[in-house]
Amino acid sequence: MITVTFLPWNKKIEIAEGSNLLQAAALAGVPLESNCGGKGSCGKCKVKLIAGDNAAPTTAESRFLSPEELAAGVVLACQRKIFRDTVVEIETRKSADERKTALRGTPIAAPEPCVKKQFLQLSRPTVEEQTPDLERVLAALPGAHLDIELQVLSRLPRTLRDASFNVTAVVIGNRLIAVEPGDTTGRCYGLAFDIGTTTIMGSLLDLNSGKVVAVAAETNPQRIFGSDVISRIGYASREQGKGLIELQEKVIGAMNAITGKLLAETGVDQNEVYEAVAVGNTTMSHLFLGVDPAYLAPAPFIPAYRRMMELKAEELGLKMNPLGRVVVLPNIAGYVGSDTVGVMLAAGLDQRRDKCLAIDIGTNGEMVLSANGRMLTCSTAAGPAFEGAEISSGMRAAEGAIEAVEISGAAVKLKVIGDAPPRGICGSGLIDAVAGLLTSGLVQPSGRFLDPEKDGASLPAELRKRLRRGREGLEFVLAWGKGGADVVLTQGDLRKVQLAKGAIAAGIKILLKDTGLAPGDLDAVLLAGAFGNYIRKESALIIGLLPPVPLERIKAIGNAAGDGSRMALVSKSFRERAAALPDLVEHVELSTRADFNEEFIKALNFPAV
Amino acid sequence: MITVTFLPWNKKIEIAEGSNLLQAAALAGVPLESNCGGKGSCGKCKVKLIAGDNAAPTTAESRFLSPEELAAGVVLACQRKIFRDTVVEIETRKSADERKTALRGTPIAAPEPCVKKQFLQLSRPTVEEQTPDLERVLAALPGAHLDIELQVLSRLPRTLRDASFNVTAVVIGNRLIAVEPGDTTGRCYGLAFDIGTTTIMGSLLDLNSGKVVAVAAETNPQRIFGSDVISRIGYASREQGKGLIELQEKVIGAMNAITGKLLAETGVDQNEVYEAVAVGNTTMSHLFLGVDPAYLAPAPFIPAYRRMMELKAEELGLKMNPLGRVVVLPNIAGYVGSDTVGVMLAAGLDQRRDKCLAIDIGTNGEMVLSANGRMLTCSTAAGPAFEGAEISSGMRAAEGAIEAVEISGAAVKLKVIGDAPPRGICGSGLIDAVAGLLTSGLVQPSGRFLDPEKDGASLPAELRKRLRRGREGLEFVLAWGKGGADVVLTQGDLRKVQLAKGAIAAGIKILLKDTGLAPGDLDAVLLAGAFGNYIRKESALIIGLLPPVPLERIKAIGNAAGDGSRMALVSKSFRERAAALPDLVEHVELSTRADFNEEFIKALNFPAV
Repeated sequence: MITVTFLPWNKKIEIAEGSNLLQAAALAGVPLESNCGGKGSCGKCKVKLIAGDNAAPTTAESRFLSPEELAAGVVLACQRKIFRDTVVEIETRKSADERKTALRGTPIAAPEPCVKKQFLQLSRPTVEEQTPDLERVLAALPGAHLDIELQVLSRLPRTLRDASFNVTAVVIGNRLIAVEPGDTTGRCYGLAFDIGTTTIMGSLLDLNSGKVVAVAAETNPQRIFGSDVISRIGYASREQGKGLIELQEKVIGAMNAITGKLLAETGVDQNEVYEAVAVGNTTMSHLFLGVDPAYLAPAPFIPAYRRMMELKAEELGLKMNPLGRVVVLPNIAGYVGSDTVGVMLAAGLDQRRDKCLAIDIGTNGEMVLSANGRMLTCSTAAGPAFEGAEISSGMRAAEGAIEAVEISGAAVKLKVIGDAPPRGICGSGLIDAVAGLLTSGLVQPSGRFLDPEKDGASLPAELRKRLRRGREGLEFVLAWGKGGADVVLTQGDLRKVQLAKGAIAAGIKILLKDTGLAPGDLDAVLLAGAFGNYIRKESALIIGLLPPVPLERIKAIGNAAGDGSRMALVSKSFRERAAALPDLVEHVELSTRADFNEEFIKALNFPAV
Repeated sequence: MITVTFLPWNKKIEIAEGSNLLQAAALAGVPLESNCGGKGSCGKCKVKLIAGDNAAPTTAESRFLSPEELAAGVVLACQRKIFRDTVVEIETRKSADERKTALRGTPIAAPEPCVKKQFLQLSRPTVEEQTPDLERVLAALPGAHLDIELQVLSRLPRTLRDASFNVTAVVIGNRLIAVEPGDTTGRCYGLAFDIGTTTIMGSLLDLNSGKVVAVAAETNPQRIFGSDVISRIGYASREQGKGLIELQEKVIGAMNAITGKLLAETGVDQNEVYEAVAVGNTTMSHLFLGVDPAYLAPAPFIPAYRRMMELKAEELGLKMNPLGRVVVLPNIAGYVGSDTVGVMLAAGLDQRRDKCLAIDIGTNGEMVLSANGRMLTCSTAAGPAFEGAEISSGMRAAEGAIEAVEISGAAVKLKVIGDAPPRGICGSGLIDAVAGLLTSGLVQPSGRFLDPEKDGASLPAELRKRLRRGREGLEFVLAWGKGGADVVLTQGDLRKVQLAKGAIAAGIKILLKDTGLAPGDLDAVLLAGAFGNYIRKESALIIGLLPPVPLERIKAIGNAAGDGSRMALVSKSFRERAAALPDLVEHVELSTRADFNEEFIKALNFPAV
């Protein structure tokens, strides 16, 4: 066994000689991007070797690392087998999602909590009045037959007497989950989680007021096994389900880390957190619950379950009152998960009367159309382009990422996260860049770059200088690297954007068609999620990602999935609506639709400018 | 640390030097009687020293052990601190309870199991019909919203596909607890337990037929901490509840040993056992559930709970399907437990129209009177005399125990368990002996022996020879010891019998009084339990233990508590009746009744012959 130390956390683990650094990172539980699952084909798992053997670069490393990086000791973790004690440093930056924190102090919904706390002043038993302890408590509580937790009953006699028979009963659903000494009705908390494939966000809410009291986020540590749900589903089936357990432990570990932060920040005790509500895509929900996701991946894409799940916290090991309840909102289908249910809830799609389209764009684009008393939903595989992945200079929305681009005349104006030197481009910047290239005529509606030799003369010299031939054909230089690589957009990148936006646009087209609507009939187009928050609507319209509607009908609604989980946490009515949603919405399976393929091919081209 | 080996099991444990042998036996989990909890005042914890230091007898040993026993190396375990490796032998005999096995092959009640198994032949999902796995199963099951066990859901996708979508769903209450491959409806089992303070009995039942398929018993290993419930309650509060956990582990260990035997004998798999129903006195039920019994002991004798408890098997660690259900029938009061509910169920007290008294005699005597549409119950502290304890020659109903006595003329006829040389006397023999001494005039209604010097002349010489002065006054020799001690009945023993039968008779009197009945109004007097099975009704009437009714109205109903647990296991209707019983029965608390004391004093005397 040899020791690997991960900086900046100084986390040490022991691992067998001959293991690679990606395996070591997985074992250590440190966050490290890896999209290809260790095949050496994504170039994302960069780490800096501080101590240990630095062998000659592998083919993959030569391909993905700049000479400057190689000189600085940067290696790809998956490429490096280690045979002696090693120290590596992982570059960490706050993710864009963490920048975004929910508004605090505003109730998410009228509080109508599912946790009921009631202060009881009971009479003491006597030889004449021998009612047992439990029945004494129950007689003072309203409602029907309650289920009793053994752990509560076990210590009930002493609790009652130590508290002179003045206690607070905590009831959740039909379970008596706690009898606390004294009057504790003022303290009642819950957690709302949005389990993203990339990022997990958590909020602590005061269930009495319905207000968010703290928010925190963590990178989903499952990323180490691949960035998309398909890699995770594949990993889950390793070693007769050991992979599934590992993935479940990872996500729960991250959720507990979030909770740890939330509790430390607010001074709330773990036992005062009685309920948690989680949303996530169908795969994330399965992995969180430790439920076999194997049959989500191949057709016919069947989830293990659909309905809203309710569990005891101790069954999952969530950091909260162990007898508290964990609720996972229902799925709709294999690729339309409880996160979409959260979006529907936050957007009120089941109650509004207008014609409304809600879109949540990530690796998969989920969309819901509510019109004429019907709700239809579908999902399309957009690929990770809009998350900055599989784009040659792509990166997540982190420091150094170009998040906005404006090409006007000869000028290329960039906005970079953290006002740092540009290191790459994230999804919102990508859409801006493509829109700018289209409007400036550098890219044709077919998606091809202008031929600089043939038609370059019409371009301002400043722009023509940026359009060059790279290793893989034409590319446009967004930013000249100073020491590092240039930030470019290649012909291949444009193709990936076309595929991604084509898939989403075609999905929208099918939903419109199935309800007999034209794009112009839409009263509202709601953009959910971090991506929707940051893209410029104008650019999204220019590249044809969104249907052609007047700009003012397009609205970013923020982390609607997370908002939905909070609403379902603090409000019984919202939760009941969430539980009912899967039966109210029609799922359109695009893989069986010939017309989807036609629409997709049509939607690959960019709209004419 | 030194090693102590217990024969005949050859069980070895390590314990700190200076510990005593009773502690070692507790640690080893071997059955060893001890009524005083190690104070040296009961003389029950006899073991034979095979190897190790044999120091001089202590005062307690000199008092309780015969010279022959001392010579043979018998010691009292609680008196012997050990400082080197030691081997001891514990005398084991099958207890009387083990001799009695339930009738097999006869259904206990019309089977109406609470476990529902249903074979499902499901259609496979397709892209056109994407119903998730769980919803596919649920759609084929009747009934309302079911709760789902995560462990079932977790492997459901694979189970369904491995079994080609032909599976058996197992539903208990409103929980889906298993989805088994293929058609397993033919195999469905349950366990019924009667947790006695002294002996635990278990039966395995086929829930499809309602028949008992195997029975087994174990000594309650909690005995090592004292033979009565008060010592156990005391032990439970040791070390902030560690004692409670220890007692719970003991009883569950013994129940699992019973189950192990039942499964081995029948070839039934642990996972095919879906439900267990247990009865026991209130203290035993509390200890089984790990619920603090502390406030049962002092007035006002308050139990932690009364109602029927339902738990998941894995919560208790019972050897059965871990997701199966464990049901503990309800208590009525601190000293009227679910065993009495079992008796009421077996005797049909809630449905019969006659005037009926049911009595379960042990250390406590519990009695229920059903008459004129009312049910009244009380319990009295009879003491352990009728179990052969605290009687100078008393012993449990095991080999060598005198179980029947007939004194006619000058002859004393004995029936000894196992036709062995008499070593002591058990409860049924004791009552016979006292009845014989009363009818032959050797004992007066006041409970005093005839003065042999004054009135002995009227006695046959054979009998007069047996009436002698012992260390503690007059005593009657039932059997002359051959090598061992004589089996005698002392004046002190007679007093203990008077106290025991006085308590029970007074309890019956109070119940009769509260319902306005005379003894002769009773249509039936039912004797529950092992004791009721073995005592001669005539003798019980002679000593005034039972109310004066015609002999034919007295009936032994066997292990009615155990029968009740079996009925509640196999029949939903019986179980519902059991759950309702505590609210239908009036508990009479005797400790507050001045008239109980009067009746008790009146009942101390034996009836005039």
